[in-house]
Amino acid sequence: MGCEPMIIASQLPAAIHDEVTRQVPEVRLIAVPAGIPEHLPREATAFFAVPYRGGPCCEQDSLSATWIGHINWIQLCSAGVDGYPPWYFNAPLVTSTRGPAAQPVAEYVLAATFAHAKRIPDIWIRDRADWASKPLASVHGSTMGIVGYGAIGQAVAVLAQAVGMTVIVARNRATGPEMPTVQFATLEEVVAASDHFVIAAAATPATHHLIGRDVLRRAKRGAHLINVARGSLVDQDALREALDDGSLAVATLDVADPEPLPAGHWIYAHPRIRLSPHLSSHVPQLYPELARAFAANLRRYLEGAPLNNVVDNIRGY
Amino acid sequence: MGCEPMIIASQLPAAIHDEVTRQVPEVRLIAVPAGIPEHLPREATAFFAVPYRGGPCCEQDSLSATWIGHINWIQLCSAGVDGYPPWYFNAPLVTSTRGPAAQPVAEYVLAATFAHAKRIPDIWIRDRADWASKPLASVHGSTMGIVGYGAIGQAVAVLAQAVGMTVIVARNRATGPEMPTVQFATLEEVVAASDHFVIAAAATPATHHLIGRDVLRRAKRGAHLINVARGSLVDQDALREALDDGSLAVATLDVADPEPLPAGHWIYAHPRIRLSPHLSSHVPQLYPELARAFAANLRRYLEGAPLNNVVDNIRGY
Repeated sequence: MGCEPMIIASQLPAAIHDEVTRQVPEVRLIAVPAGIPEHLPREATAFFAVPYRGGPCCEQDSLSATWIGHINWIQLCSAGVDGYPPWYFNAPLVTSTRGPAAQPVAEYVLAATFAHAKRIPDIWIRDRADWASKPLASVHGSTMGIVGYGAIGQAVAVLAQAVGMTVIVARNRATGPEMPTVQFATLEEVVAASDHFVIAAAATPATHHLIGRDVLRRAKRGAHLINVARGSLVDQDALREALDDGSLAVATLDVADPEPLPAGHWIYAHPRIRLSPHLSSHVPQLYPELARAFAANLRRYLEGAPLNNVVDNIRGY
Repeated sequence: MGCEPMIIASQLPAAIHDEVTRQVPEVRLIAVPAGIPEHLPREATAFFAVPYRGGPCCEQDSLSATWIGHINWIQLCSAGVDGYPPWYFNAPLVTSTRGPAAQPVAEYVLAATFAHAKRIPDIWIRDRADWASKPLASVHGSTMGIVGYGAIGQAVAVLAQAVGMTVIVARNRATGPEMPTVQFATLEEVVAASDHFVIAAAATPATHHLIGRDVLRRAKRGAHLINVARGSLVDQDALREALDDGSLAVATLDVADPEPLPAGHWIYAHPRIRLSPHLSSHVPQLYPELARAFAANLRRYLEGAPLNNVVDNIRGY
């Protein structure tokens, strides 16, 4: 084209760099370390950012970075925007990445659902003395509640319906495709109707401790809570009470507050919590999906088209 | 109707009796104990039989029962016919029950598939030191092999396709509905192509040790074998070799040979076998489904219509 290539500072893995530049050869990506950078290369006009993994981001992190002045666009590599310092959002344009994680996270939800219904791993025996049949639950005909109807909630709805579950969804606004067999209801109605219910809403000030005492005491006897969103959406003290008084049978948590949970935290020891270390989206297929999403938005940027998933500073996601 | 009610000797649970007589009020069921009966009530002309649970049935069990002379029809309560003495099949008409167990068994297969792909229970941690992400496998896009295409194999095909798996089936004759996206192949091709493969064929002399050394050494690296049929279909010594030399990653067995496995059997201790005690069909929904199947065949019998699932003495199922 003759002109200077667009320069992008990027915290993404090399494999994604290679794929993005293969798909959009007219840009140049410069690798920068993870974390909250104090400086970015002067020539960079965009920044591909990964969440800050050292702990929660808060106002104290708002060091006066010099680079915010020359970066026109920050592309976040996650759907959640809670892992970045608030002042990132002062950039002229901030976009998130929705979709690539939805399928693997929805599969994690289905795995947790089947494991609970089929009593895995309790049915796997190691001794003749344990050879005795146990009643299992059916997944077909049971009810999946979904709290939050973004890309992940929609992917869970598709999979749950595919295996014969009834799906009931609480969403905070009328978005997402209408599925003729999905029922929309209030959060309280969803929790009351569900055999399994999954938290898949964005972490914002409005959803902090969304799942608290008042909600949990409405749960159906024997219900199974699954959280694949963020730990902050669930009031963990209220969760503990609900598990201990039998309001909930089991909780499967891929997220916690904080992450990682400190050594000795009660969640590690609770017999009715299945805790995994925030890995539900960790599948080999994620990198190519991320690269495709970045390349698509980059192409739109170069063409001056409206970008996908512009972050709304008011709603916070 | 004025005539004497048809009398049926039955080993089924009282809950199924009640439901069958509710659906077909013109018959009378007389409860007889489980096991191989020496005598049945003289007035009985049909027999609803449950499998002999004390161990394998063999020629030695062929005591000269007096009742075989006055029983015109034996309805077996399972799809498999291997749990009954061979001389039952001298009755004029023997029918099996196909279908009621198919959905729960297929769900067990899906549960095992998701558990393997998502590394359940290994991902569930109990300590801060284990907080580290692990790569999970995708179910979508992986391949489910199905060996045997009766009611269970077909139910697995439907569920596996519903969650985005490629399905490849080995069957011994062209039965079952053609599904446009199911590929039919030889046993060897199925085993070679599958990430997960499920044994769902009938136990007959022809299928004894169907899954032996020659078949297992063709398995795809990292493959997962699931047996929900009968233990006798798998050569357990060959299975052990395949797990130990890495030809197979994991085996999920809901059946074994013999059942129960004796105390101290190596299968209990093998780190890469998930063994459950033949419970995959054990869901609350099974009894109403069995009652419906019995009532339907009984109605056909009373009307002189051809019965469902007449056992073929030549094929043996």
